[in-house]
Amino acid sequence: MRMYDIIDKKKFAGSLTDEEINFAVKNFVDGKIPDYQMSALLMAIWFNGLDERELTALTTAMAHSGDMIDLSAIGGKKVDKHSTGGVGDKTTLIVAPIVAACGGKVAKMSGRGLGHTGGTVDKLESIPGYRTELTRQEFFDTVNTCGLSLIGQSGNLAPADKKIYALRDVTATVDSLPLIASSIMSKKLAAGSDCILLDVKTGSGAFMKNLDDAIKLAETMVSIGENAGRRTVALITDMDTPLGFGIGNSIEVVESMDVLKNRGADDLTKISLELAANMLYLVDKGTLEDCRKLAEKSIVDGSAFETFCKMVKAQGGDDSVLRDYDKFPKATYSREILADGNGFVAKMNAELLGKISVMLGAGRETKDSPIDYSAGIILRKKFGDEVHAGESLATLYCSDEKLFNAAEKNFRAAVEVGEKTETRPLIFARVELNHTEKF
Amino acid sequence: MRMYDIIDKKKFAGSLTDEEINFAVKNFVDGKIPDYQMSALLMAIWFNGLDERELTALTTAMAHSGDMIDLSAIGGKKVDKHSTGGVGDKTTLIVAPIVAACGGKVAKMSGRGLGHTGGTVDKLESIPGYRTELTRQEFFDTVNTCGLSLIGQSGNLAPADKKIYALRDVTATVDSLPLIASSIMSKKLAAGSDCILLDVKTGSGAFMKNLDDAIKLAETMVSIGENAGRRTVALITDMDTPLGFGIGNSIEVVESMDVLKNRGADDLTKISLELAANMLYLVDKGTLEDCRKLAEKSIVDGSAFETFCKMVKAQGGDDSVLRDYDKFPKATYSREILADGNGFVAKMNAELLGKISVMLGAGRETKDSPIDYSAGIILRKKFGDEVHAGESLATLYCSDEKLFNAAEKNFRAAVEVGEKTETRPLIFARVELNHTEKF
Repeated sequence: MRMYDIIDKKKFAGSLTDEEINFAVKNFVDGKIPDYQMSALLMAIWFNGLDERELTALTTAMAHSGDMIDLSAIGGKKVDKHSTGGVGDKTTLIVAPIVAACGGKVAKMSGRGLGHTGGTVDKLESIPGYRTELTRQEFFDTVNTCGLSLIGQSGNLAPADKKIYALRDVTATVDSLPLIASSIMSKKLAAGSDCILLDVKTGSGAFMKNLDDAIKLAETMVSIGENAGRRTVALITDMDTPLGFGIGNSIEVVESMDVLKNRGADDLTKISLELAANMLYLVDKGTLEDCRKLAEKSIVDGSAFETFCKMVKAQGGDDSVLRDYDKFPKATYSREILADGNGFVAKMNAELLGKISVMLGAGRETKDSPIDYSAGIILRKKFGDEVHAGESLATLYCSDEKLFNAAEKNFRAAVEVGEKTETRPLIFARVELNHTEKF
Repeated sequence: MRMYDIIDKKKFAGSLTDEEINFAVKNFVDGKIPDYQMSALLMAIWFNGLDERELTALTTAMAHSGDMIDLSAIGGKKVDKHSTGGVGDKTTLIVAPIVAACGGKVAKMSGRGLGHTGGTVDKLESIPGYRTELTRQEFFDTVNTCGLSLIGQSGNLAPADKKIYALRDVTATVDSLPLIASSIMSKKLAAGSDCILLDVKTGSGAFMKNLDDAIKLAETMVSIGENAGRRTVALITDMDTPLGFGIGNSIEVVESMDVLKNRGADDLTKISLELAANMLYLVDKGTLEDCRKLAEKSIVDGSAFETFCKMVKAQGGDDSVLRDYDKFPKATYSREILADGNGFVAKMNAELLGKISVMLGAGRETKDSPIDYSAGIILRKKFGDEVHAGESLATLYCSDEKLFNAAEKNFRAAVEVGEKTETRPLIFARVELNHTEKF
């Protein structure tokens, strides 16, 4: 078998055999196939795509290129969640304890933030003492005891995906639906859960700017997951404006706890409950309607919040900060951004707000940048809200006062007060195997 | 400017600016753009092609990546010839002296053979003493004195093409018409002649298996040449069966001299006269009809043959072998291949015959293989000829008797005696700027 022939076949829109796909992935990871041949194949795939069988083979091959995490030491059905990334997306902190409180098992490894979107691990590390690095045994024990454990990525997960992604990133082959889908799903397969809930974002702050592309991506990933033997469902949710009011690490933890205490922001609460309900549905806790009720009950009765506190303690964290937010370290400086005139919030660029938050110290410009856990933004007005001149649009938090002027200038470019505009739905569609429902 | 954006633009079928093309070629040659980005761009070009302006820019950029040979020290109009490669294609040995005898100037650098097609330089080196490596000054002097000089490639011609071709060869991007056309033409532009005659082969023994593709390639190359300020014409000629009767180095020199002595094979003579007439037409020696008469006269009156002998002597060769072929070193062994039955030569696979000739020692398996100048094949019957059982189909020549059995077996696979079949025309079409004539 020769890589040359594999490239040539895909170039002429041939369907690669499982053997050919395995050969290409394995030998590329082993360094036996050079980058220049893989990049030619990736470009041919960009043009001619991959059919369902090829996609499953590619995803499986990438998953098996490294550790395949065995979660069998954890009792019950494990459900994972993946979000395609959004600004102010703290839903994992809310959804995982709800699911655990209702009897699902969430053994979840998350990433750190890079660029304009925050990372769940960074948010968790804003809780004093919380350990995001556990041994495999501690991880299993925590899930068995608490119903959930949220940790950082460990082990060698899908190194083929990592190596292929790095190449796509410099050869203009990132924007290929089959390659995006197989990249995400390879890591989910390797992470070992029985079921997968995908939160595919669409809108100005998301990778998929339009709904049809987002639905197509969701359908492709659901099909890969199911073909690989994992129950998979996807929701298409809005990322045109940030979710909730907070952007920043401890800021988002606080906001998440408010949802678990049944006093959270409407949009964030609604989306979190729907994600949690779908995860419970995947682990067979009843009909979707039953699962919605279960999820709601867990925040009304406080069981989801207590479940989260239990995990925090189990992982060395100080849960008292979650009960009394004043105990969180505070940012040294804050600045109110006041509205210049009357009107309605007519534009709120999520991506730019994410970048401002990074600028204030809440995120990383590069992989090794330090993080200021208290920095960030609390929005006082959301998209569609009425605004009067002099009212606060947002409060910026930061440990270096000099950063405020540039941040405010960017904020005024990201947020526009003008005519009343129609608001967008929060959830656009739901995708189950062979069944897509648009709302 | 970033290579990433150039790849991305071509991927979406954008037309690259001259600056973008120059940037990509220059930085690739300088090692600043890695192979994996260039191979992604080449694959995007495979899919989306290049328009006429892009093609001219790419070809010019590749030509200018190395030496641009300055032939101004040679008086008169210089005309080059390029053949896309064929088995038994010895036309350069015939055409160049005809053109020189009629007043054209041919300052031609040729390649060595590799694979199943022979190289002009190898054929010339079968003439005892003939030097294919001259200094630039000796080269110019020979053309000024004799009207022609045939030498090996020297200098650093189009290194960008060399580097890009090597990458195409391993990334399945060789079979791209714009890339083939620009590769050939970049070397012709660098070689410095005012006019270029292209001999585009079509048929089973050629790269372009079908006529339409060959015409498209010819039109593309003519357009590049003319856009770059060189008068360019192309003929599309047959390479379904070998040209003439001989395959091998000294064997082809002898056969070429027979044409110059006006006693050559019909097909070879006809094609050579037409190629020569078109070269004379390009250097303004009259109408095509005038030029045909000039060319014919030069072989009838012996002036073309004497011109060739004069050049051979000027380059250190022994021209007496051209007058008395017995003086050529002879192969130690020969074998007649006898026909099994009666019929007509119904198939004659040029590519396979070329490979048999290499197998007998006449060509190179790898770049450094030694060559046996006397080895090869003389066909006794050509495509369409009537054959009686026991008649010789061909004589094989070789210095190692052990090679004959395998060679004969392959020969019998390459040549089939059967029903009478219609013969193909020798010349299919002629392409001048904006004017393609099919015959």
